[in-house]
Amino acid sequence: MNTICAISTPYGSGGIAVVRVSGESAIQMVDTLFRGRKSLTEAKAYTVHYGEIWREARGERREARGEILDQVLVSVFRAPHSFTGEDVVEIACHGSMYIQQTLLQWLVDAGCQLAKAGEFTQRAFLNGKMDLTEAEAVADLIAAQTKAEKDLALSQLRGGISNELAALRERLLTFTSLIELELDFADHEELEFADRTQLHELANEIDSTIGALVTSFKTGNAIKQGVPVAIIGAPNVGKSTLLNALLGEERAIVSDIQGTTRDTVEDTLVLGGMLFRFIDTAGMRVTNDTIENMGIERSRKAAQRAAIIIHLQDATMPQNTLSLLENINDKMVIEVYNKVDLVPSFTPCDGAIGISAKKGNIHALKQQLVAYAEEQCNMRNAVTISNTRHYEALQRAQSAIQRVQEGLQMQISGEFLSMDLQDCLTALGEITGQITSQEVLNNIFGKFCIGK
Amino acid sequence: MNTICAISTPYGSGGIAVVRVSGESAIQMVDTLFRGRKSLTEAKAYTVHYGEIWREARGERREARGEILDQVLVSVFRAPHSFTGEDVVEIACHGSMYIQQTLLQWLVDAGCQLAKAGEFTQRAFLNGKMDLTEAEAVADLIAAQTKAEKDLALSQLRGGISNELAALRERLLTFTSLIELELDFADHEELEFADRTQLHELANEIDSTIGALVTSFKTGNAIKQGVPVAIIGAPNVGKSTLLNALLGEERAIVSDIQGTTRDTVEDTLVLGGMLFRFIDTAGMRVTNDTIENMGIERSRKAAQRAAIIIHLQDATMPQNTLSLLENINDKMVIEVYNKVDLVPSFTPCDGAIGISAKKGNIHALKQQLVAYAEEQCNMRNAVTISNTRHYEALQRAQSAIQRVQEGLQMQISGEFLSMDLQDCLTALGEITGQITSQEVLNNIFGKFCIGK
Repeated sequence: MNTICAISTPYGSGGIAVVRVSGESAIQMVDTLFRGRKSLTEAKAYTVHYGEIWREARGERREARGEILDQVLVSVFRAPHSFTGEDVVEIACHGSMYIQQTLLQWLVDAGCQLAKAGEFTQRAFLNGKMDLTEAEAVADLIAAQTKAEKDLALSQLRGGISNELAALRERLLTFTSLIELELDFADHEELEFADRTQLHELANEIDSTIGALVTSFKTGNAIKQGVPVAIIGAPNVGKSTLLNALLGEERAIVSDIQGTTRDTVEDTLVLGGMLFRFIDTAGMRVTNDTIENMGIERSRKAAQRAAIIIHLQDATMPQNTLSLLENINDKMVIEVYNKVDLVPSFTPCDGAIGISAKKGNIHALKQQLVAYAEEQCNMRNAVTISNTRHYEALQRAQSAIQRVQEGLQMQISGEFLSMDLQDCLTALGEITGQITSQEVLNNIFGKFCIGK
Repeated sequence: MNTICAISTPYGSGGIAVVRVSGESAIQMVDTLFRGRKSLTEAKAYTVHYGEIWREARGERREARGEILDQVLVSVFRAPHSFTGEDVVEIACHGSMYIQQTLLQWLVDAGCQLAKAGEFTQRAFLNGKMDLTEAEAVADLIAAQTKAEKDLALSQLRGGISNELAALRERLLTFTSLIELELDFADHEELEFADRTQLHELANEIDSTIGALVTSFKTGNAIKQGVPVAIIGAPNVGKSTLLNALLGEERAIVSDIQGTTRDTVEDTLVLGGMLFRFIDTAGMRVTNDTIENMGIERSRKAAQRAAIIIHLQDATMPQNTLSLLENINDKMVIEVYNKVDLVPSFTPCDGAIGISAKKGNIHALKQQLVAYAEEQCNMRNAVTISNTRHYEALQRAQSAIQRVQEGLQMQISGEFLSMDLQDCLTALGEITGQITSQEVLNNIFGKFCIGK
């Protein structure tokens, strides 16, 4: 494997920057530029060394002593105990753009190659330091903007999904081998190495585990994209005012005129470490206005996309509009009464919340949103998937294991069972990367930043 | 000294980021968040440790096990062998903005204080790890955009100026003590502990050393701000075309009409690792046009500000305009003939260069510029100062030592000599920071970036 180098710290100038070098010759190559108390080749793993970066005088330049680039701290890691599993050197230099770029240039002159996007993590995967879901979690972790995203990525990086799948796959593999053994003895039809009852139980277990993971995708996706919250209600109950109050800015146009909001207005906000995507909608009512009806149709669709519906009513004249929506059985609905400041005697019914969007009195609603989202995400207990690639493979695995279940019920031959079992194994193996192709890898690691 | 923390890598998200912690409790404080194979308090200096950042569960949160933030590499340095001279811990975390900010927050919760701009370097200075010129060089190094700037800053960081001044100051100090001893024995007027001839020699030596440093400021300044190069010539010789050709863009307006350029047009360019500041000027000629004459006056001033003058003539009809300039004896002048493509038989006289700005044939001129600038900067031999604060203090030191020289010639009393010697010592001491005030320190380190 050739030796690669890249700037691993964010782009720009700062106090320090770190250039990472990984590969068989990493230590020797950096050592040709390094002048410290002793040679890096003698350095123990996991040690830091102070020194200077020099290069030899070249051509007819007058600086016979060579040229110094910077004073640096160099950390040495030795295979296989490093991020990539190879020898790794990390050079912490002064964070001038000129120095960072020149150091990279000198490393290339010394024989290193510029790392491609995600190449360090890809090597970690290829060297067995992490499986594919863990490698993908590295990119998610770097992109994390909220606590929930960080938790999700870190759980995945620490083997959450892999552990969940590994044991199942292992047991499935055993059964598949036994069934294939039966096929080898096809002449003796009475032979059954693989206990069909046990296999059925396992298939059920796998179906249910995969099912839970597939279902968790909606949650994982919500964490990454923001939990979709639709604000639904009759005209003029203060939906846009509520959106603005939540965001703390004049995001949506507010007026006394019914039907002010036509297009749905979306924006995101972090509450309690979780990203929410609020959708302000047109007021729900029966009308002949064509444009307004188009807006109302969009409100319906927004409600269907949402995980949480804020059903907003005017406390001075409550008006239920939920009945105008369809397919919202799986949604969490928060009943909210606005303008309670105008109704001194107002007492919300059980579970409902009274707010005053105009006065910014919406704290109780925020708390309820966080509680609902946490309940829905339920992040702390189960493994949650958030990656479309995993979702797609899990769906294939589930459909294969369901064919196994049906096959067992219909007592089909081992030959057909074996095919479905193989399909399931393949799909599961693709997730963790036991089975993979260069194309898939390029696709995954190409989305990384350079230097990781 | 309290314990401080800051993000030391450039602002933004990237593969990794480094959070630096320095102070008496740095290791203990980070250790409260760190879960690794062993406690950081047992870690040897200059070692790296893999582990996780956790914090205890707080309040009524459900995560009884606490919350994990990231997987990190932690480097441990122990006083006095660290950048600041204190215990230092550097935490390399994943470069997500969320993780960087949260890590900082957790460190603050653990008892760290957010570092002020330049506070790490300021501590290095206060702990005697570097003198003031070296500390200032750290900021210059981080800001370095060219090889010349980097060379300048690094030479200063490696003690260039300090070494130059330290020995002189030491010897001057000895003489001053002797003269003050004489004053103590003021009753015995014949006593002379300090040899006046030797003192005179030393004063001459100091005067000449300081003089060289003061002179070098012009060079140092040119390296930082760009070597000023004025393009001077008669109207329509192609000055603006040359500027555009040098910059590789249409920076100045070009036309066939004489007097197109009125205001001077400036822009910078890096050539041969050095920054140049090119100044395009109005054509020099005798005219009655008021506005044009104002432009020509500006050309004259530009020539006076320049270190290098490109005297541009039209090869098809050479016309010397240098005679229209004043005070250019100390400038390097490059004689350049433009439009040589129109004069096939053109042979430039000795030392002159033929170019075609329109066709971009200007390579020989670029080479000459780099050679002249290197000659003028002469960076490789002498110590060069580039800092206005040093320049100002050196001027004070020089004026004091010149008073000493005069005093010796006039055989004035030791009392007056002593005052001037003290002034010189103070000025020199201010440069390296032996003598300083909190105000000066705030002024210097306030300009640093945070995290350094």
